[in-house]
Amino acid sequence: MAVLKPHPDRLLPADPTTRDIARRLYQTVKGMPIISPHGHTDPQWFADNEPFPDPAQLLIVPDHYVFRMLYSQGVDLASLGIATHDGTPYEADPRKIWKTFADNYYLFRGTPSRMWLDWVFSKVFGIDVTLTPETADHYYEVMDASLKTDAFRPRALFERFNIEVIATTEGPLDDLRHHKKIREGGWKGRVVTAYRPDPVMDPEHIGFAENLERFGQLAGEDITTFAGYLKAHQNRRAFFREAGATSTDHGHVRATTANLSPSEAAALYDKIRSGDFSAHEADLFRGQMLTEMARMSLDDGMVLQLHPGVYRSHNQHVLNRFGRDKGADIPLSTEYVHALKPLLDAYGNDPRLTFIVFTLDETVYARELAPLAGHYPALKLGPPWWFHDSPEGMRRFRDQMTETGGYYNTVGFNDDTRAFFSIPARHDVARRMDCSHLARLVAEHRLDEDEAAEVAYDLSYKLAKQAYKL
Amino acid sequence: MAVLKPHPDRLLPADPTTRDIARRLYQTVKGMPIISPHGHTDPQWFADNEPFPDPAQLLIVPDHYVFRMLYSQGVDLASLGIATHDGTPYEADPRKIWKTFADNYYLFRGTPSRMWLDWVFSKVFGIDVTLTPETADHYYEVMDASLKTDAFRPRALFERFNIEVIATTEGPLDDLRHHKKIREGGWKGRVVTAYRPDPVMDPEHIGFAENLERFGQLAGEDITTFAGYLKAHQNRRAFFREAGATSTDHGHVRATTANLSPSEAAALYDKIRSGDFSAHEADLFRGQMLTEMARMSLDDGMVLQLHPGVYRSHNQHVLNRFGRDKGADIPLSTEYVHALKPLLDAYGNDPRLTFIVFTLDETVYARELAPLAGHYPALKLGPPWWFHDSPEGMRRFRDQMTETGGYYNTVGFNDDTRAFFSIPARHDVARRMDCSHLARLVAEHRLDEDEAAEVAYDLSYKLAKQAYKL
Amino acid sequence: MAVLKPHPDRLLPADPTTRDIARRLYQTVKGMPIISPHGHTDPQWFADNEPFPDPAQLLIVPDHYVFRMLYSQGVDLASLGIATHDGTPYEADPRKIWKTFADNYYLFRGTPSRMWLDWVFSKVFGIDVTLTPETADHYYEVMDASLKTDAFRPRALFERFNIEVIATTEGPLDDLRHHKKIREGGWKGRVVTAYRPDPVMDPEHIGFAENLERFGQLAGEDITTFAGYLKAHQNRRAFFREAGATSTDHGHVRATTANLSPSEAAALYDKIRSGDFSAHEADLFRGQMLTEMARMSLDDGMVLQLHPGVYRSHNQHVLNRFGRDKGADIPLSTEYVHALKPLLDAYGNDPRLTFIVFTLDETVYARELAPLAGHYPALKLGPPWWFHDSPEGMRRFRDQMTETGGYYNTVGFNDDTRAFFSIPARHDVARRMDCSHLARLVAEHRLDEDEAAEVAYDLSYKLAKQAYKL
Repeated sequence: MAVLKPHPDRLLPADPTTRDIARRLYQTVKGMPIISPHGHTDPQWFADNEPFPDPAQLLIVPDHYVFRMLYSQGVDLASLGIATHDGTPYEADPRKIWKTFADNYYLFRGTPSRMWLDWVFSKVFGIDVTLTPETADHYYEVMDASLKTDAFRPRALFERFNIEVIATTEGPLDDLRHHKKIREGGWKGRVVTAYRPDPVMDPEHIGFAENLERFGQLAGEDITTFAGYLKAHQNRRAFFREAGATSTDHGHVRATTANLSPSEAAALYDKIRSGDFSAHEADLFRGQMLTEMARMSLDDGMVLQLHPGVYRSHNQHVLNRFGRDKGADIPLSTEYVHALKPLLDAYGNDPRLTFIVFTLDETVYARELAPLAGHYPALKLGPPWWFHDSPEGMRRFRDQMTETGGYYNTVGFNDDTRAFFSIPARHDVARRMDCSHLARLVAEHRLDEDEAAEVAYDLSYKLAKQAYKL
Repeated sequence: MAVLKPHPDRLLPADPTTRDIARRLYQTVKGMPIISPHGHTDPQWFADNEPFPDPAQLLIVPDHYVFRMLYSQGVDLASLGIATHDGTPYEADPRKIWKTFADNYYLFRGTPSRMWLDWVFSKVFGIDVTLTPETADHYYEVMDASLKTDAFRPRALFERFNIEVIATTEGPLDDLRHHKKIREGGWKGRVVTAYRPDPVMDPEHIGFAENLERFGQLAGEDITTFAGYLKAHQNRRAFFREAGATSTDHGHVRATTANLSPSEAAALYDKIRSGDFSAHEADLFRGQMLTEMARMSLDDGMVLQLHPGVYRSHNQHVLNRFGRDKGADIPLSTEYVHALKPLLDAYGNDPRLTFIVFTLDETVYARELAPLAGHYPALKLGPPWWFHDSPEGMRRFRDQMTETGGYYNTVGFNDDTRAFFSIPARHDVARRMDCSHLARLVAEHRLDEDEAAEVAYDLSYKLAKQAYKL
Repeated sequence: MAVLKPHPDRLLPADPTTRDIARRLYQTVKGMPIISPHGHTDPQWFADNEPFPDPAQLLIVPDHYVFRMLYSQGVDLASLGIATHDGTPYEADPRKIWKTFADNYYLFRGTPSRMWLDWVFSKVFGIDVTLTPETADHYYEVMDASLKTDAFRPRALFERFNIEVIATTEGPLDDLRHHKKIREGGWKGRVVTAYRPDPVMDPEHIGFAENLERFGQLAGEDITTFAGYLKAHQNRRAFFREAGATSTDHGHVRATTANLSPSEAAALYDKIRSGDFSAHEADLFRGQMLTEMARMSLDDGMVLQLHPGVYRSHNQHVLNRFGRDKGADIPLSTEYVHALKPLLDAYGNDPRLTFIVFTLDETVYARELAPLAGHYPALKLGPPWWFHDSPEGMRRFRDQMTETGGYYNTVGFNDDTRAFFSIPARHDVARRMDCSHLARLVAEHRLDEDEAAEVAYDLSYKLAKQAYKL
């Protein structure tokens, strides 16, 4: 059985001079607390502090990175325990799910999932052999036993992981009860929410009309008028801020923004509310609302995040059988220069606004986003996202963003994950890759090492706190 | 005179640690037989086993990589022996052609052509000085004499090159007589064909209407109806399979696929057959036929290949004077996410289908193709193609594909060439670059060396055999 | 205080073998005279040879790279001495401007501006401590005192910088008096102009109608007809050639070219002159004029340059308050394959034409521009431009252009700057990066060192002279 032992120098450049520099830089930041300003962990974990489920339910069933790769090689999602929506059976035995995963673990060679998972196996569970079909049972037993202990409950791990603050993401219809419970329970861990109003801001969202009704009721506003609808947002934003939210987040197909006149915007809202609108009008409405959100951000100080450019649920068969978020979301070519102009013309020159833009289209790094962020006071660059939250993705991000955008128009790292156990591994990868990037600049005499160390600190810790006001 | 001697470590990373790893990995795969599942060699060479022509006719006149570069620097194509279509004279003296090439050989510095050619000069012909104007005659004489020997006949080289199997590419109107002769002649070399029906599937192909007539006759089907036309394809596919074909291949302008209802498809076919159709309808027809091909592949097991995204014969002057395929084909920005959805919705979830997609637009590697191939069971990523079949092209392919697509959604290497003498050099470049890529991962402690060795074997040999069913 | 001392090995690869090779290559080209074939220095400097202004007016106020980065972090442009257009006050005290810059100098870490500026501070002004808030006054005093000496006058620096020839850029309405004065004054420095007719060729240029009037008067031609308008261009081109011009340059939104019939072109001109035209017609007119310029180039031998793909003055607020060229120009996705075809079909096969194309969209390097330039005799690739005139930008340029385009379809380096003091630093960065690129090829046994040395010389000196006919 091969030994599993994440190497202390992993991800650092092989050249000895550069590696020495990278190692020194990394030593200064590896122990910094984790700032996780954007992600998808479940606040109920921290509220109730119940044990996590079995290894398969913990690490396979909810991880779209994992099951998408297995599926691509012909492994049926049902055999991985993904619940079907069509009544067909799916695997319920976590040991079988785990075995199927172990049989196919070689597929993850060269992927970030492999690196995160090996870290979890080794550092969280203390396993010291590699995962193979032969070691699958050993893995299952060690992990299953550990998960039943108090040391593996959510709050204990939160503390062990050295998380200073973590943000979850909730919809506008959420009552934030878990956050309330955490806040009032006396535990010192800091868990804040974030306002993600897609269900009431995206006219193409499933259940939009009903969501809107509910939204008005919750907010106590008359959402039959645009003015009332905007007030409802202000109201809910205030409610979210009470639960610690410092940011809003928006997942749109395009990066469209708009700045219509009040009467045009009100007329568009009426059209949208009628249910009789075109795809273009839906896009325009989302874009108009981004600008409204920016305006509200100037009032209440919330940071505005935009995550655009994904074709959601590309696979009709998988959508029908298993539902949304099943690894079938595919990035799209995304334009920002024309798209962001209306919002930027309205509020982009105001340094009080922080507008963090993400992309899954790396071609815009050097061409569009770095030039925009290297000019507009309000605009900041979100870290490499989703498919690009990986060593090579991070390398491309720094290589293509830095020369025009600098470091100080970026905002540190987001883990953006629901996979709680992997959070330290993800931040560690980012710190190692940033230190590797900086070490190359130092080795090539493009930056002094003392300045590089300051930048490493800023990228690992300070910028995230500062940009997200945490 | 400078010495010509391809260095044993060529293309391996300079860092000593990484180079040592790469060298070890490369040693395990350098001697593997060549699997060439897609290319354009002439089956008549292997059928008749006649000597190849003179050095200029062998290495310059048919190689668009070579004459496009010379032409770009003002060398007239006619002076390189390219036959004119307009009656104007062109050079017939192979020594003069060779001398013009040698005079301009410095233009190829830094290009893959230089690397392939130097390998051919050194390893195939045993020449030990670099090609310069001064050594041009020496080169010509050595090569010309060699080419007249039995050791340089096609079958001898096939064996010397350690080719396990090679696929040629033929049109649907081909009688495959050369493949028949090879098969029946008792030679042990394995040469198979591939079905490339562009002449009867692309309504914008020159001679489409006549091709269609001929196609119906050859297949013994009534191609005046869509049903008959589809049967003709089934018939010809069966005929090609008898000649060893395991794949079909399609060269389209866009990656469009479609899945029309039977009546819509039949109506579209009638429109196309009438000759009165729009560019959009031609594109739609090609897209519909790709989906039909996928369906037939499920029946007969043939692998489906798509090579989209080229503006063919961009240079009107060169087209008029010298015809097609004269180095004037230019890649286009190509969209896959929307384009492939109809075919993928129809057959993308079926692991029995192997649909190999290529691209000349590298921006889609990380953004579109790796996410698609990292999800759909049927979809696989073709290797770096044409302009990107080069060390840097291969580096970008692995750097941008692996983290989301992994290694096992790729299919090994294609040489995709008519330049028979360069085939071992091309496979060798791919093996060296893959080992270099893997060595970096090992040196950065991202992959264990024993796993890297398995991957090196898979990329060099196993995946091509497996994906193409060879 | 940290020591400021640009390292002799800066930008060279860290790997010792590769660095040794790069160092040897660099030694052979570091002392070559500077050929600056395209840029924006002010010919009046060299004509009048008056001292340059204070440090802030010299290095901050005119440098959009510098103030865009400061502005992006909330520093008001007015506080940097940028003149307002709306009557609001702006900082006039150069010491205060300098202090604001020094306070924020850390923002430039990792950017080319930092590298250029440090070089200017150290090598031109002899300062040996890094710029910090604490050393700001020292910096100001040293530089201010130096600038008042004869050794820092334009002609003295021109000679000290070892500039063999520099091209400025003037509009068609310019009387070229400064060039005349230089030419007639007996100074041996070679300063030539370049013809940039955007003000009379771009219908969307501010003041187009008035410019056209003036253009006709200056040229002594009747610009009410297209024939007269074309003659006016020929006339002005001849006038510019007398002032040494060897090139024309064109800054267009898109890369569109057109080749209308004479009557269509004349009708389009009438439409444009009427002032009643669409955006499409304006684009078509610019495209038609590029083809006319190519035709004139065949007559008078001038090199044709195209700089497309920028959204100018993206920020309406900054445009209103401070005017154009204030760091708010943003690159656009740009298509070349279809766009350039009309011009290339007309003149692309003529090796007498030199058509140099630039891009801010790096995705076209390997996909479109290298294939086009690796085929068409007239087409050459301009060096990495503007945001990409940086170490990583140059690395990507060579990595993505060379394998298909080679070295000899590129044209050496352009500094393209108004920042006279930084010109040697910019050429030095290009030479270092080209030598680093070549050294990697040598270290990986892809190119012999003697050939690499020839290429280094060509890229640093010969190709620019040759391509621009200087």
